[in-house]
Amino acid sequence: MDIIVLRPGAAKKDLRYIVKKLEHKGFTANISRGTERTVIGVIGDTSKITEEESNSFGALPGVEKVHRIIKPYRLASRDFKPENTTIRIGKHIIGGKKIHIIAGPCAIENRQRLLKIAQEVKKAGATFVRGGAFKPRTSPYSFQGLREEGLKLLAMVGRKTGMPTVTELMDPRDIEAVLQDSDIIQIGARNMQNFRLLQEVGSYDKPVILKRGLSATIKDLLMAAEYILAQGNSKVILCERGIRTFETATRNTLDLSAVPVLKGLTHLPVIVDPSHGVGQWDLVAPMSKAAIAAGADGLMIEVHTNPEEALSDGEQSLKPEKFKVLMRELKVIAKAIGREI
Amino acid sequence: MDIIVLRPGAAKKDLRYIVKKLEHKGFTANISRGTERTVIGVIGDTSKITEEESNSFGALPGVEKVHRIIKPYRLASRDFKPENTTIRIGKHIIGGKKIHIIAGPCAIENRQRLLKIAQEVKKAGATFVRGGAFKPRTSPYSFQGLREEGLKLLAMVGRKTGMPTVTELMDPRDIEAVLQDSDIIQIGARNMQNFRLLQEVGSYDKPVILKRGLSATIKDLLMAAEYILAQGNSKVILCERGIRTFETATRNTLDLSAVPVLKGLTHLPVIVDPSHGVGQWDLVAPMSKAAIAAGADGLMIEVHTNPEEALSDGEQSLKPEKFKVLMRELKVIAKAIGREI
Amino acid sequence: MDIIVLRPGAAKKDLRYIVKKLEHKGFTANISRGTERTVIGVIGDTSKITEEESNSFGALPGVEKVHRIIKPYRLASRDFKPENTTIRIGKHIIGGKKIHIIAGPCAIENRQRLLKIAQEVKKAGATFVRGGAFKPRTSPYSFQGLREEGLKLLAMVGRKTGMPTVTELMDPRDIEAVLQDSDIIQIGARNMQNFRLLQEVGSYDKPVILKRGLSATIKDLLMAAEYILAQGNSKVILCERGIRTFETATRNTLDLSAVPVLKGLTHLPVIVDPSHGVGQWDLVAPMSKAAIAAGADGLMIEVHTNPEEALSDGEQSLKPEKFKVLMRELKVIAKAIGREI
Amino acid sequence: MDIIVLRPGAAKKDLRYIVKKLEHKGFTANISRGTERTVIGVIGDTSKITEEESNSFGALPGVEKVHRIIKPYRLASRDFKPENTTIRIGKHIIGGKKIHIIAGPCAIENRQRLLKIAQEVKKAGATFVRGGAFKPRTSPYSFQGLREEGLKLLAMVGRKTGMPTVTELMDPRDIEAVLQDSDIIQIGARNMQNFRLLQEVGSYDKPVILKRGLSATIKDLLMAAEYILAQGNSKVILCERGIRTFETATRNTLDLSAVPVLKGLTHLPVIVDPSHGVGQWDLVAPMSKAAIAAGADGLMIEVHTNPEEALSDGEQSLKPEKFKVLMRELKVIAKAIGREI
Repeated sequence: MDIIVLRPGAAKKDLRYIVKKLEHKGFTANISRGTERTVIGVIGDTSKITEEESNSFGALPGVEKVHRIIKPYRLASRDFKPENTTIRIGKHIIGGKKIHIIAGPCAIENRQRLLKIAQEVKKAGATFVRGGAFKPRTSPYSFQGLREEGLKLLAMVGRKTGMPTVTELMDPRDIEAVLQDSDIIQIGARNMQNFRLLQEVGSYDKPVILKRGLSATIKDLLMAAEYILAQGNSKVILCERGIRTFETATRNTLDLSAVPVLKGLTHLPVIVDPSHGVGQWDLVAPMSKAAIAAGADGLMIEVHTNPEEALSDGEQSLKPEKFKVLMRELKVIAKAIGREI
Repeated sequence: MDIIVLRPGAAKKDLRYIVKKLEHKGFTANISRGTERTVIGVIGDTSKITEEESNSFGALPGVEKVHRIIKPYRLASRDFKPENTTIRIGKHIIGGKKIHIIAGPCAIENRQRLLKIAQEVKKAGATFVRGGAFKPRTSPYSFQGLREEGLKLLAMVGRKTGMPTVTELMDPRDIEAVLQDSDIIQIGARNMQNFRLLQEVGSYDKPVILKRGLSATIKDLLMAAEYILAQGNSKVILCERGIRTFETATRNTLDLSAVPVLKGLTHLPVIVDPSHGVGQWDLVAPMSKAAIAAGADGLMIEVHTNPEEALSDGEQSLKPEKFKVLMRELKVIAKAIGREI
Repeated sequence: MDIIVLRPGAAKKDLRYIVKKLEHKGFTANISRGTERTVIGVIGDTSKITEEESNSFGALPGVEKVHRIIKPYRLASRDFKPENTTIRIGKHIIGGKKIHIIAGPCAIENRQRLLKIAQEVKKAGATFVRGGAFKPRTSPYSFQGLREEGLKLLAMVGRKTGMPTVTELMDPRDIEAVLQDSDIIQIGARNMQNFRLLQEVGSYDKPVILKRGLSATIKDLLMAAEYILAQGNSKVILCERGIRTFETATRNTLDLSAVPVLKGLTHLPVIVDPSHGVGQWDLVAPMSKAAIAAGADGLMIEVHTNPEEALSDGEQSLKPEKFKVLMRELKVIAKAIGREI
Repeated sequence: MDIIVLRPGAAKKDLRYIVKKLEHKGFTANISRGTERTVIGVIGDTSKITEEESNSFGALPGVEKVHRIIKPYRLASRDFKPENTTIRIGKHIIGGKKIHIIAGPCAIENRQRLLKIAQEVKKAGATFVRGGAFKPRTSPYSFQGLREEGLKLLAMVGRKTGMPTVTELMDPRDIEAVLQDSDIIQIGARNMQNFRLLQEVGSYDKPVILKRGLSATIKDLLMAAEYILAQGNSKVILCERGIRTFETATRNTLDLSAVPVLKGLTHLPVIVDPSHGVGQWDLVAPMSKAAIAAGADGLMIEVHTNPEEALSDGEQSLKPEKFKVLMRELKVIAKAIGREI
């Protein structure tokens, strides 16, 4: 269902042209003449009209505006699948009653440090270990990650600790390596609309964490998920990680209302990354608690044993001791809302 | 302490002029010559330099940028007063261990309805009753509030239920009436930088809830509080109520990270208004829980017995039954973080 | 005309309730049942429905969304008045073929300086002189303006140079003084939604420059203008002066597309303030040219003889010599688009 | 040069640790003790410190904030190369006195239509033809472009009309094909921080148009350019195409102040895409004129013979007749500012 609003004083022939065009495409036009505007309701399965076809009506003479009534995403929508999607990874289920904590360093730096961090976060109650091997850095002069070597280290640490692993994929040419060494593929915020990369991960049966882009609306995020789902991969986990606003006190503005909004619109699990969302370690704890209280299915938290020597994002990483304290607090909050960690 | 960065290749006479100007104002210049830039550190009590004086250095020849090191607010700062401010209103204390819930309709509509809502929210555990008598509406054709008559109704309902009252002041000319009939004065988001209004409420010994403007940074909010504090009124309660971003799925983007950020920068109590923050009643519950988990000292929630007939903001008001359920959940969360409601 | 979209699976009784409610208010419901959604078109003069009444339908059970088709502003709309509004002030007409340049210091500082600046800008071709007597400063410790004394100086300089004057009104209690000493009242960005102030200036027959708020949409700006128009004052000049975005390289982001958008939606004159829009004097010239090219009816430019000593906004003020050069360039651009300065 | 600001009351050992750490890295610490804060100036070639190393100081105990004084980009900076970069493509030079107009359809649809459009825009004065073969669409169900077949058509039309061609590259795996059939590679807004793609195009000697991301600051854009420059490709053309803000009246907010800001910071040519910037064909003309007046080195304009049938972005495409009229107007504006088209 689309709604086409005509300009005041639109010519009769403009109206006739639009009606003919709609009928030609197999739709019925329901014309309502108000006192100020004439409005055309498009009857029929308008989900078959692409966004662009719909918009192109806006270029027709006499048209003031086109309102889209149906959602442009289908597979991601709760209309399509009302019950929650749960994703099994090893012995864990994401999207169920249990809230999962994914923890680890921003970048994989060396074997020893990664293993140490993984052991610490596991002890504290984290169920997945994260670490970047390919790092999207705003500066070409920054550390870009250990690449394939980093992937191998992550896989090894995953085996050694028994924790499934999460790492970011930036380039379709690296997919084979990432598929082999990681249990979940992460698509970073800056690649949320790298549509070719989305199609690529959509063609494998591998869980994907899709991070919301810095300027992506919730609809944009769901459309990006739709790209993956449309290729056949239904294991998509959405991740709120902060949007870009005018506020400079925090690195980004963590939009926690996205959690209940997404939970209403889609059946997919929703997690939150407070570390990138706020960008300062001392804000990670309160925002982690708030994310759980808002209904998140999981958290992704950066932990580092020596944040001041970290090759990436040290200022937003928790030390293991702080992480341990936080995990205890999160368990209490989870229980308070009828879930568990 | 201010830092003045010179352009590469700034003339020596430009440097000399700046140094002389600083010395004339009673400061010492600490010059550091780096390989790429020369930087002048301004030594002395630069808190006496106004923002504008500081900026005006940016207009001098040879200057690339001025970095302000000290915070432009003083009385609002934790540097000035490290311990939390608590505000006593009747038998209640805001800013202490107990979290306070302020509830009521957006606008005061009539005696009976206001009383009914106040009784319901009190029963559920709210400690303050709110209601607008002067309403800032985006349209001149919308209901503008019952004005003085509304104030009288609010005061009567406050007395009848034993709850202290909160109402908005929009115009300095109404202050006497509002002072008389309300226990807390609310300054709305659209008036956060109505500096004359801030000065006005600053000159009375009356608690003020200061709502963050739609495009106000956290620093702007603290500067607005400073206006009130500088007049002698130290009873300021800050209120996060959503900022304007590109996201259209919610009315505003509720910036919950503002809570811990403010708690770090200032000693003033911080509350959250989830109703305006998200603008849809079904998101109020999760965001209320998240606000408590993030560390808010209170919440301001719109409740209405007949939201669909409300003269203002019906779509974001909770019905009393939903509010009751929410209050029960909030108590559990509060306990989980070591506080109480 | 409003469009009410029902949720998939909305109950029949919800639909019946809405239809009855609409009929009760004197409207006809046009129901379209699509394959995915049922949509109700509201037939009748929906301009009589306030925004809030319209929104309150969103609180009804079964309703997913309400689309407003008609514009919430009427008197400001080109639908209401298709031809351009022109405003005569002294011998000048704003909104006609001639583009007017309003120039002067941010704040009035003293008699001699204001006179000197006014004489300089007049010589260069400016037709109005501006200067702030009441200054909205983010810091309570900044210079707040010379107040009544500043108004007297401005009036005197206006008489002496033969230029009509522009100054800002911040508080309804100062209106008599401002009406007496200024030819145009400016409502600043921070007061754009100070609705009581808008109503106040709306009740006099005095031209008003209404500046767009930092987070005001174009619709918000037009609604603010509607407040003035609805009181009977039709002499409103809209002013784009930059909006708040994530970009920090400029003080604000000057939204020049607002000029042609406003010209399409409203009959009111539109001017641009590039000085506040960008906040750096070296960007004022290119953005002034761009504003003229985009179709602005005038510009408001800050000029100061000693920017580095200015008590306000020195970093964005042009010196008279630069202003003179700019005026020559602007005249060429104006001619290129078939207008004149 | 970096500036490290300590918290009030930072411990002496924290200061000593930082100084030691700086000296260990080969820098000198210049300590200024103000009345409120102690500040450390880092003396030495801090351009060798990565952004991340610099930030990591923020994780150290006792540190309140780190101010970066030097720009994080080097090759893109005017400090590095003061004179304008000009890029020769065929017989045309971008970045010189002549302003170039790149025109064509959003997507390549078929041979005949593309040829017709190219011939029309050439006749009107455009010097480059654009057309998308790989299309980044927000919906997976939208037309994704003719891919390799589209590239062939574009190359053929380029040869036939004698116009150099511009097309978008979305995936590093397509680079050979794009290099062969296009004279300029476009990197779209959504891929501005697809760093692997940037490195890929950086390793060829081929002009690149780099579009600003929807939420990219000017600094982010220059850092993205730095990625390309750092690989050895110096032929980068920056393109402002609108940023995402709260305003919904236009598709994006075209930030024309980015043109003079960029011209000050970098030696690279800067062009503007008004079609995507505003998203409505009737706003393209005024914003094109404004962009020229603001100092743009070129424009990228969507032109389509049948916008209402376009497979992409019809609502923002000009018809050839409108484009012809616009070109005449642009020539007059260009002349008015001492340039030519």
